[in-house]
Amino acid sequence: MNTNTVSQLLAKDQFGLEIEIKGWVRTFRAKRFIALNDGSTINNIQCVVDFENTSEETLKRITTGAAVHIKGELVESQGKGQKVEIVVTSIEILGDSDPENYPIQPKKHSFEFLRENAHLRTRTNTFSAVMRLRSNLSFAVHKYFTENGFYNMHTPIITGSDAEGAGEMFRVTNLDAKNPPVNQEGKVDFKEDFFGKETNLTVSGQLEAETYAMSLGKVYTFGPTFRAENSNTSRHLSEFWMIEPEVAFMDLAGNMDLAEDFMKSVINYILENNKEDLEFLENRLLDEEKTKPQSQRSEMSLIEKLKFVVDNNFKRVSYTEAIEILRNSKPNKKKKFNYIIEEWGADLQSEHERFLVEKHFKCPVILFDYPANIKAFYMRLNEDGKTVRAMDILFPGIGEMVGGSQREERLDVLKEKMAALDIPEEELWWYLDLRKYGTAVHSGFGLGFERLVMFATGMTNIRDVIPYPRTPQNAEF
Amino acid sequence: MNTNTVSQLLAKDQFGLEIEIKGWVRTFRAKRFIALNDGSTINNIQCVVDFENTSEETLKRITTGAAVHIKGELVESQGKGQKVEIVVTSIEILGDSDPENYPIQPKKHSFEFLRENAHLRTRTNTFSAVMRLRSNLSFAVHKYFTENGFYNMHTPIITGSDAEGAGEMFRVTNLDAKNPPVNQEGKVDFKEDFFGKETNLTVSGQLEAETYAMSLGKVYTFGPTFRAENSNTSRHLSEFWMIEPEVAFMDLAGNMDLAEDFMKSVINYILENNKEDLEFLENRLLDEEKTKPQSQRSEMSLIEKLKFVVDNNFKRVSYTEAIEILRNSKPNKKKKFNYIIEEWGADLQSEHERFLVEKHFKCPVILFDYPANIKAFYMRLNEDGKTVRAMDILFPGIGEMVGGSQREERLDVLKEKMAALDIPEEELWWYLDLRKYGTAVHSGFGLGFERLVMFATGMTNIRDVIPYPRTPQNAEF
Repeated sequence: MNTNTVSQLLAKDQFGLEIEIKGWVRTFRAKRFIALNDGSTINNIQCVVDFENTSEETLKRITTGAAVHIKGELVESQGKGQKVEIVVTSIEILGDSDPENYPIQPKKHSFEFLRENAHLRTRTNTFSAVMRLRSNLSFAVHKYFTENGFYNMHTPIITGSDAEGAGEMFRVTNLDAKNPPVNQEGKVDFKEDFFGKETNLTVSGQLEAETYAMSLGKVYTFGPTFRAENSNTSRHLSEFWMIEPEVAFMDLAGNMDLAEDFMKSVINYILENNKEDLEFLENRLLDEEKTKPQSQRSEMSLIEKLKFVVDNNFKRVSYTEAIEILRNSKPNKKKKFNYIIEEWGADLQSEHERFLVEKHFKCPVILFDYPANIKAFYMRLNEDGKTVRAMDILFPGIGEMVGGSQREERLDVLKEKMAALDIPEEELWWYLDLRKYGTAVHSGFGLGFERLVMFATGMTNIRDVIPYPRTPQNAEF
Repeated sequence: MNTNTVSQLLAKDQFGLEIEIKGWVRTFRAKRFIALNDGSTINNIQCVVDFENTSEETLKRITTGAAVHIKGELVESQGKGQKVEIVVTSIEILGDSDPENYPIQPKKHSFEFLRENAHLRTRTNTFSAVMRLRSNLSFAVHKYFTENGFYNMHTPIITGSDAEGAGEMFRVTNLDAKNPPVNQEGKVDFKEDFFGKETNLTVSGQLEAETYAMSLGKVYTFGPTFRAENSNTSRHLSEFWMIEPEVAFMDLAGNMDLAEDFMKSVINYILENNKEDLEFLENRLLDEEKTKPQSQRSEMSLIEKLKFVVDNNFKRVSYTEAIEILRNSKPNKKKKFNYIIEEWGADLQSEHERFLVEKHFKCPVILFDYPANIKAFYMRLNEDGKTVRAMDILFPGIGEMVGGSQREERLDVLKEKMAALDIPEEELWWYLDLRKYGTAVHSGFGLGFERLVMFATGMTNIRDVIPYPRTPQNAEF
């Protein structure tokens, strides 16, 4: 096994130590200085080659991207910005990297170009930082819930139910694509399919998570979900990861507390554990913004934004209050919104959400108590008979980060809602059972993991925060 | 929010404390003693009702499965097996549970019956223990890799590649099921499909994980994988979770070290954190075995088996040695095997694996250096030209738990292998790129998470260790 990583070596101060290291050449300058990286940190370790005693042939093979095995001595660095470097005593080229053809040259590449080379893009500083942050955010999620008494639950990916109601689904099938079996009614006979019925990719694990909350108390899912929607935007993926906690005996207020505490905790985790990656990404953003006019630059730097979320309360605003604010807002009165807010009941568009978060409140906002008819069937109807105990959390620059609700726990109300939406009871018999046997107030939310990674990294295209994005017309790699 | 859990109350010793608790009634006896559970632990807390001062109507509604909100005083328990109990001062029924119809009665139910009621089966001791263990094993996986410098990576679920080679795939599509578009050649025109080509559900994230290992160094995946195989056995699922670490600069020996250390670590984690759940499951197994003849009973109890794995080295045996052992074994000589081992090159069947693990070595066994022609194209060819650096880890009672290998890092050898198997290079251009630019020795393995849960819980049917199993003809819930 690899005994040393760059990260470990950079933390040492035992000068004179004989060490071995394997990694990839980031740059090689003056036939002398290798910047070596192995993915363990954004920092390279400088390896100084004795070029007079190294064959010309070997020197030629020390190119950007080449894998090398270096033996040498750890010494105090003479250069600035690094404490230690390696005086190379032997270097072996493990794998060459032809400089003529290697796509990842030591220069700025466009994100678009790097998306086409997604298998190599983590060899750049930006993407290695993003993916290390993604990984640590993922661990922070598991850590938070485990430490707070939640059980992780793997809800099914292939679902026989089409009542999840969160969006268009992909079909999962094994039938002959061209000549599927047909039944007596002339329709495709899904009884002949692998699962004996029509099946799809899940859009949410919530309904199944509720079944476990009503026995294990506090549970969460963290798995892939799917939308077969033709949305070619920088905020949508066809396949993305979602986090869905579900808690028995918790009402909407508790749900908001949980969501806020959770988000602060995971962001705090990366502030503590990914300082160097965040500093790199912060500088990248500052550089990028230099090319923009003053008015379009951010008021806060990346790390300031993250700290702001950790240190400040999210603003809690009812839908009804939000509508009042929007109706009286300048862009509404001057008809600058594409959708003018005229009356209570209107569905909020992202322009309205952005106004509330970025202009009016200037902090994360939790909107709650939405009109029943613009929200899903399973949300708890309030006593007013027209709003439901739903909440959305809106983040600056991202929009909706979290969507959740208290769930309708009353069997009769739930049945009425399903009937009104033509959802057959047979389809969700097991979901109704939860209301028949020991029902109780319970709540949960869903958080799109990639949106969290976007916020935490400052990346503005969702395709740049997941290893291999799936979008309409694109399932490469 | 729910301020107390049963688990927290059972750990307290502040007698006289006024407390509140919400949970579900497991049993109610003598109109007096409620065994209350909320999923936070396998243990119930006893709540003593003052039946003389409680209305008959309320007493009637305290039934198995009902959700209740209890206020009372924590007192020292008079009964045995528990330190504290609650003297109830008020009880509110949150959700009734009609005793005539509630499926989960306080009696033994068959696992088959509970599978049909999978939405309620975690209301039993057995399944709540299994699912708490599953959750903690999952956390132990993330903890182990994070603490050892690995990055978690989410590999794609929908794949456009059919070269993963691990088994039959499910098609993911959005085309009209009955009348799909047809191209000029008379074939289904997948260019019209959502992703612009034919797509399937992944059978493994390994190839993508390799791309990240070759930049980030050490990575792992933990996600759902799929097999469209008509295997209706107690060891196969159509949808299951797999753990796949992949490490740059690591050879096969390092891979074996990693797998062994990993398995010991996660098993040790539950020994430390799930004592009560494991004791319950151990006793369940002991009870079950009482009905069996002596010869079929286990030599070790569940916890003894887990400790044995943690405390003992896995036996490492080459395929060639294993063939010799099998060829000279009693069942081979007496023709008791269904497949008689005659010569080197034979593929091992589960009867052979079980003989090696359960009869011959009596411990976990790592078999390595398999014949090239029974293993996948990406495995590193040994210098003998006929074996590959593959390894399988076999566990008693489970069979294959881990399959891994050192990967072929040489471009020319890999291309030859792909050509021999008719895998087009265009299909895996990005995978080949890893061998073109900075290639290096690297290795990894895959571990079927449900098999680990089976081993850790002593459950013998894989459908009982995942919340909602997907198998041929079954995608319920």
